Amino acid sequence: MTIEQALARMNELEEAQSAYFHAMGTLSVDGDTVAPKQSVIGRSKTLGYLSGITYQLLINDEVKEALQSILDSAGKVTPAQFRRAELLKEDYNEMTRIPMDEYIAFNALSSEASAVWHEAKEKSDYPMFAPYLAKLIDYRRRFAAYKDDTRPAYDVLLDGFEKGTSMAVLDPFFATLRERLTPVILAIKEKPAPRTDFLHGDFPIWKQRLLSDKVMAMMGIDRERCSIAETEHPFTSGFNKWDVRLTTHYYVDDVSDNLYSVLHEGGHALYELGVADELQFTCLGSGSSMSIHESQSRFYENYIGRSLPFCRALLPVLAELFPAEMEGVTPDMLYAAVNRAQPSLIRIQADELTYSMHVMIRYELEKLMLAGEVTVDELPKLWNDMYKQYLGVTVPNDREGILQDSHWSGVSFGYFPSYSLGSAYGAQMLRAMEKEFSPWPSVEKGDFSPVTAWLGKHIHQHGKLLTPAQLLENAIGESFDPTCYTDYLTDKFSKLYHL
Amino acid sequence: MTIEQALARMNELEEAQSAYFHAMGTLSVDGDTVAPKQSVIGRSKTLGYLSGITYQLLINDEVKEALQSILDSAGKVTPAQFRRAELLKEDYNEMTRIPMDEYIAFNALSSEASAVWHEAKEKSDYPMFAPYLAKLIDYRRRFAAYKDDTRPAYDVLLDGFEKGTSMAVLDPFFATLRERLTPVILAIKEKPAPRTDFLHGDFPIWKQRLLSDKVMAMMGIDRERCSIAETEHPFTSGFNKWDVRLTTHYYVDDVSDNLYSVLHEGGHALYELGVADELQFTCLGSGSSMSIHESQSRFYENYIGRSLPFCRALLPVLAELFPAEMEGVTPDMLYAAVNRAQPSLIRIQADELTYSMHVMIRYELEKLMLAGEVTVDELPKLWNDMYKQYLGVTVPNDREGILQDSHWSGVSFGYFPSYSLGSAYGAQMLRAMEKEFSPWPSVEKGDFSPVTAWLGKHIHQHGKLLTPAQLLENAIGESFDPTCYTDYLTDKFSKLYHL
Repeated sequence: MTIEQALARMNELEEAQSAYFHAMGTLSVDGDTVAPKQSVIGRSKTLGYLSGITYQLLINDEVKEALQSILDSAGKVTPAQFRRAELLKEDYNEMTRIPMDEYIAFNALSSEASAVWHEAKEKSDYPMFAPYLAKLIDYRRRFAAYKDDTRPAYDVLLDGFEKGTSMAVLDPFFATLRERLTPVILAIKEKPAPRTDFLHGDFPIWKQRLLSDKVMAMMGIDRERCSIAETEHPFTSGFNKWDVRLTTHYYVDDVSDNLYSVLHEGGHALYELGVADELQFTCLGSGSSMSIHESQSRFYENYIGRSLPFCRALLPVLAELFPAEMEGVTPDMLYAAVNRAQPSLIRIQADELTYSMHVMIRYELEKLMLAGEVTVDELPKLWNDMYKQYLGVTVPNDREGILQDSHWSGVSFGYFPSYSLGSAYGAQMLRAMEKEFSPWPSVEKGDFSPVTAWLGKHIHQHGKLLTPAQLLENAIGESFDPTCYTDYLTDKFSKLYHL
Repeated sequence: MTIEQALARMNELEEAQSAYFHAMGTLSVDGDTVAPKQSVIGRSKTLGYLSGITYQLLINDEVKEALQSILDSAGKVTPAQFRRAELLKEDYNEMTRIPMDEYIAFNALSSEASAVWHEAKEKSDYPMFAPYLAKLIDYRRRFAAYKDDTRPAYDVLLDGFEKGTSMAVLDPFFATLRERLTPVILAIKEKPAPRTDFLHGDFPIWKQRLLSDKVMAMMGIDRERCSIAETEHPFTSGFNKWDVRLTTHYYVDDVSDNLYSVLHEGGHALYELGVADELQFTCLGSGSSMSIHESQSRFYENYIGRSLPFCRALLPVLAELFPAEMEGVTPDMLYAAVNRAQPSLIRIQADELTYSMHVMIRYELEKLMLAGEVTVDELPKLWNDMYKQYLGVTVPNDREGILQDSHWSGVSFGYFPSYSLGSAYGAQMLRAMEKEFSPWPSVEKGDFSPVTAWLGKHIHQHGKLLTPAQLLENAIGESFDPTCYTDYLTDKFSKLYHL
């Protein structure tokens, strides 16, 4: 096989993969947003079938030979071509260790499990979901062992989401967070809580939809390339830079929930919308690792979205839509309210300070699950006990407890730590950005474009062309240092709570 | 190849086709409802790619041999197996006459054309759409010639939608309608128009969405298996009996438009929802010919939806949602209003009486287009002239003229006559139904279930297992007679207008 033939074969593979992943992604987003409930019957069949085909596309000798021939010709191919071959080869290696019938059965199961989880959460019926969870853990452990049976399954999964990550890295990371943040959390418990009553009231959904539109406009999200839909647990899917799907969830009595969902998912969306044209429809055409992706979502959600300058831009928008609720509210009051630090039940509603404790609990449980040291029946009690221990809150039901997140039904064991890592990366990105220019004058005017331009230049445009480590180096120009994150939080919350 | 092998090969084909058609259907529905505008860039690529694959699935020697072997074993296979092979062979024959590269290019073009039409309609910019229309006509003529170059292209297309139909059948059919209905239409022009002002006013979309829910409930549509979405030009897609997508369009100043869209599309939906379990995921698993499908949609829309008993059931629902507008309105007033007969511009808003004139105009234009006797540039003038001639109305712009329907952008030349044929079939179905029982006492209570049970038994459950002619025979037990339809209309409108 000549190098030209090898490159042509790789192009052919990616053209096919693009089409299948796009179709399967559309089926999934549709299923999670607008499809009728029982459509899961047909969707499971279709996704099972198509995932079998995508397996066959990648796993064949011709592809193997083509990829190897490109990897052996580093000097003769472009860096993008080399990187594509490298990532595809990684997928190849991972998949060839999974027998195809298991892979198909697993995909069909995970599609079904997602629907069951939705219903179980609605009914707060954990036993309904538990047998699916058990099977999914089982598959994941087995698949991890196929990949590398010399390491603990959870390390293999963590590495899959973020190369180089392992329990050996994360144990001390979470220890640092715990150590530095616990005194702040405890000190704040003694302080009077800011007013948040004006964020709760009667916020009709049709008005909140208008708020979403306005926030997306401030973020500079191109609505011709990005839609918004509604789902139980918000997520973002990017099929290509011309087709990104952001989702949110509305609560009629709480205006901040959707608001920060849109800011968070909007961060994911801007990343996908910003990947360079020349990477589209190849395997490099979307965001890099989960942690880098979460660094972007949480950048818009927290570093920008929970800043005082943004609150100055946001308040007039809120006041126009909800004049009665916002009567007498000042930007400082809004800033204090959206930063109210208080141990709570729901991760995605948690404040910036206590958020990592939620992540840590999931991390600890995943360690146990993947080590096989706990049965699914024992999980709710463990969950509830840890919420009591680390956050001091009593979990009233599984809906607000162990069933709250979609990640386990979506088989994303090992994903949660990305949120905290991403937040920590973000703190260093903000520091790096502020060395070049201050984003705050434009954020205060509701204009995120300088922020997005900077992130676009250092992160977004590169898609998967650069490794997570290269992207981080690109953006922060220094090595990873979680104390930048803990310093930021300590400083922000000490001022907010007059510690 | 043994008969067992042949049947297994056919099952395999249909399993694959089900998955691909489901995925492609979902991409299309998503594209027509909620997808961001520029998503068409990726969707065209994906649909083009997948349609190439579906071509390859069907068009290969193994499939050809399997189908032939089943067709040669009539006594040894079930009627359903035989019918499946028969329909698949028809597709095979049709497709093998189209070179694959043309088929792929055509599918990509038609996806793009659909998006361009949406924009052209929005901007009332026919020249924007015209070059696409020209290419689509060209493809269709070429494809028709590949299928059968001994007959006029339009006859080939008509036959594709409804076996046995041709200009030789439709010319006298439309002549009968014109002849019998024109005196009624003319007589009504001299009569005072009923009040319809209460159907126009301020009908907020969120309330109209509630009305759709209530109408779908009266129709007995299972919402766990059928969703409703919004689009420019309403349509219904059924992927399987557990996943049907109904769409509608809301106008804030007109409550009847959406109402009758939901009744019409709901008729299509009930058909797809009612196909027997054992036909699912095979090529027999959806509704039969276009005319039979339209007979169902127009049955619910007109024979039921524009009846006095239904108006009695509907009025309290309308009055609850829109008390100010419905103040003082009686069931008879509502009945008269929803049956106001008046030549108008928009086909889908046309009344039951003048509707067929809209269809006839499209039929006449399609005859010219497919015969190559007219250029796309000449079409708007011809359209406008015929609206003047047959309906006496002046077309103010192309948005309300030639760009109003999605059919031509969707390459459905030859589809329009199905509406009139379907309506005519429906009149005979109603007569047959009334010989067995009167549907009106339950319709008056807002309960369509006896109607759906009867249609389900005679039509819906059979999917494509029976031919259109068999279905019609099944339902009406007599031969097709368009005067049943013209009698029904003459009687109804003579009474309504006191002729």
